[in-house]
Amino acid sequence: MAGSLERLDRALLAAGLDGCLVTSRPDVRYLSGFTGSNGWLFVQPDRRILLTDSRYVDQAAAEAPAWSVAIAPAGLMAALVATLDGPARVAVDPADVSHAIWQRLPTDVEVEWVPADSAVRALRRRKAHSEVDAIRDALALAEEVLLEWVADLRPGMTELSAAADLEHRCRRRGATAMAFETIIAGGSRGALPHARPTEEPLAVGDRVVVDFGCVVNGYCSDITRSVEIGASSDPAWERIHAAVDEARCAAIAAIEPGVRASCVDATAREVLAGHGLAEYFTHSLGHGVGLDVHEEPRLATSSTDVLEAGMVVTVEPGIYLPERGGIRLEDMVLVTTHGAERLNGLGTDVLRVAEEA
Amino acid sequence: MAGSLERLDRALLAAGLDGCLVTSRPDVRYLSGFTGSNGWLFVQPDRRILLTDSRYVDQAAAEAPAWSVAIAPAGLMAALVATLDGPARVAVDPADVSHAIWQRLPTDVEVEWVPADSAVRALRRRKAHSEVDAIRDALALAEEVLLEWVADLRPGMTELSAAADLEHRCRRRGATAMAFETIIAGGSRGALPHARPTEEPLAVGDRVVVDFGCVVNGYCSDITRSVEIGASSDPAWERIHAAVDEARCAAIAAIEPGVRASCVDATAREVLAGHGLAEYFTHSLGHGVGLDVHEEPRLATSSTDVLEAGMVVTVEPGIYLPERGGIRLEDMVLVTTHGAERLNGLGTDVLRVAEEA
Repeated sequence: MAGSLERLDRALLAAGLDGCLVTSRPDVRYLSGFTGSNGWLFVQPDRRILLTDSRYVDQAAAEAPAWSVAIAPAGLMAALVATLDGPARVAVDPADVSHAIWQRLPTDVEVEWVPADSAVRALRRRKAHSEVDAIRDALALAEEVLLEWVADLRPGMTELSAAADLEHRCRRRGATAMAFETIIAGGSRGALPHARPTEEPLAVGDRVVVDFGCVVNGYCSDITRSVEIGASSDPAWERIHAAVDEARCAAIAAIEPGVRASCVDATAREVLAGHGLAEYFTHSLGHGVGLDVHEEPRLATSSTDVLEAGMVVTVEPGIYLPERGGIRLEDMVLVTTHGAERLNGLGTDVLRVAEEA
Repeated sequence: MAGSLERLDRALLAAGLDGCLVTSRPDVRYLSGFTGSNGWLFVQPDRRILLTDSRYVDQAAAEAPAWSVAIAPAGLMAALVATLDGPARVAVDPADVSHAIWQRLPTDVEVEWVPADSAVRALRRRKAHSEVDAIRDALALAEEVLLEWVADLRPGMTELSAAADLEHRCRRRGATAMAFETIIAGGSRGALPHARPTEEPLAVGDRVVVDFGCVVNGYCSDITRSVEIGASSDPAWERIHAAVDEARCAAIAAIEPGVRASCVDATAREVLAGHGLAEYFTHSLGHGVGLDVHEEPRLATSSTDVLEAGMVVTVEPGIYLPERGGIRLEDMVLVTTHGAERLNGLGTDVLRVAEEA
C-alpha cells in the first residue's frame, strides 16, 4: 500500500524499535504487494527485504519491485539469519508466529526480538482510498451475484447446490475466491449463526439466511440477507425482520470517528431489547473487513476499539429462535471524517423466491 | 477415527506423558470427529474434553458424542484452565500454537507443559480403511470431473473461468470444498510449478498444467494432468511427457514399506537425469495426503521419513522449461503391506481438447 512503509517506519521509531519482522500473509501483502504463500518481510529504515522460496523468484520481483528479494533454499529462518547485521531491536508479533518458530529466532546475534502487536496490522485498520475502492468492487460484485442467483433459485434445490451455484457465479464474474465458507441456512437451520450448507432442500415457506462474500483484488466483501421461498409470509417473522433492520439502521447512524465500537454494538442491542428480543441476538455486531474478512476493529460488547475515519466494518445484527430459524441483515460501512457511509447499493428487504418457475 | 484414542493413550504412555493438548484443526477432527472452526481437545487416559464456543454446542454433541464438551465463553484458554486438576505432564506441539498462546499456558498449576511433536499427527500418517475409502471417493470424484470438464473445454476460455467451471463441477457432485487453490497454467505459465489461473485465454497449441483436488467427507484428493488445446502435438514435448511418465512409474514401483521416502524421490530424479532433464525437476516428488492435502510423509531429497503400510502419498514428477512451459503428472498411491497400490483409475496420457466445437 502506497505510503505504508513510511508510516511503518514512523510507528517503529515512535515505539523505540529499529525494525520489525512481518510474518502474517495479509501484512506481507499489504506492505510489499507480494501475494505468494510463503514470505516474510524484514524491515528496517534502510532495509526492505522480502524472504521467500525459489518458487516465487519471478513473482516476488514482479509484485514487490521495491524490495530486495532473498531466496531461502533452507527455509525462511535460515535466510533471515543470513540477513541480520549489527545491533537492533526488532519487533515480532507473537500471535503471528508459532511457538516453534519463535524459539528458533536466533539468540547468538546482536538482535533483540521484541514481542509486540503487529504495527502493520495496526496500519491496516484505516483503509486507503484504493483499498476502499477494492472493497466497493468486491461488495458490488457480491450484490449483483446475489440478485441474479435469487432470480434463478427454485424450491427443491439443496443448500449445498445453491451454495455451489452462488460461488460459481462469483468466480465467473471475476472473484478470485470466496471470502469465507458460504452460509446458506434454511428453516430451523437458520437458528445456527454459523450453519454450513447441508443436503437439505430449500422448501416452500423456508426463510433462508444467506451470508457470503468474495475476494476481488485481494479485498473481501461480506453481506447477509434473508431469502424467503414462496409468496406468503409470517407476520411474526415480519416483525422480527423489521426489528433487526431497525437495529442495523440505528447502529449505522451511531457510527462516526471517535465513537467506541462497543457503543455501536450497544445501540443495536438496545433496539432489539426494545422489541423484547435482546436474548436472541447471540453474537457481536460486526468486524473490520479488508485483506482479511475478519480484522480489526471488533464491534462487540467487550471491544476496546475506537472508530476512526477510514475503517470499514460490518454491521450485522441477527435474531435466532432456537429450532425455529433466524434472520441476519449485514451491511458494510465506511467510517468517514464526519460520520459513516453505507457501502451497499442493495436494500435489506426480504429477497423472495417464486414458488413456481 | 475408531481406535485412535486408544493408540494415542499408548503413545503418550510410551513417551512418559500423562496427556496432551490437541490444537490443530485436522488433529481435532481426526481424534474426536468435531469439525467446527474453534476447538481444542484435552486428553488424559480418563479424560476426553472438547473445548469449544457457544456457536458449536449442538454440533459438538452430535459430532463428538464420546467427548465431554466444555463451552468456553471467555476463550479456549480460560476453559482449559478451568478443566485442569492434579499434577500431570501434558504434551503440546509448539508448531501448532502461536507463541502468544504458548505464553498463556498457565504456570500456576501442577501441569507441566511438554513441547512435543503432535502424537495425533503421527497417528494420521497411517490411514485406516475408512480413511483410504474417503480418499478413493475424493479422487474418483476429481477424475470424473476432470474428464467431463475437458470434454467441454474450448480454446478462448480464460484460465480463471476454466478454473471456476472445474470447481463448480466438483461442488455440484458433492465435494464440500477444493483441497487447495486450483492450478490451471497454459503455455509458458506452465513453467511456474505453483502458477495461479490468470485472465489469459487458453489458446490452440497450449499445453496446460491442471493440478487440483477436492474434499469429500473431510479427505482430500490431489491430481495433476497435462491438457493440450488442439489436435497437433510437439515431438519435443512428447518426449518430455514420456520421460515424466517413466519417472512417475519408476517411483511408484519403488514404493513399499520400509523404503526411505528420499529413495523414492531419488528414483524419479534418476530417470529424469537419464533423459538429461534432471535440472528441470525443481521440486520434491510428493507428500502425504489425508485430512490435510499436504501432510506427512514428505517424498523429498531431504526427507528422513520411512514408508509404512497405510500411508497415502502423491507421486508428482514434473519438468519445467523456463518461459516455455511445463508438464507434471501426479498420481496418488497407497503403501500396502507388500508394495504399493495406485489409487487412480485414470491414465496419464495427454488430455486433448478439440480445436473446434
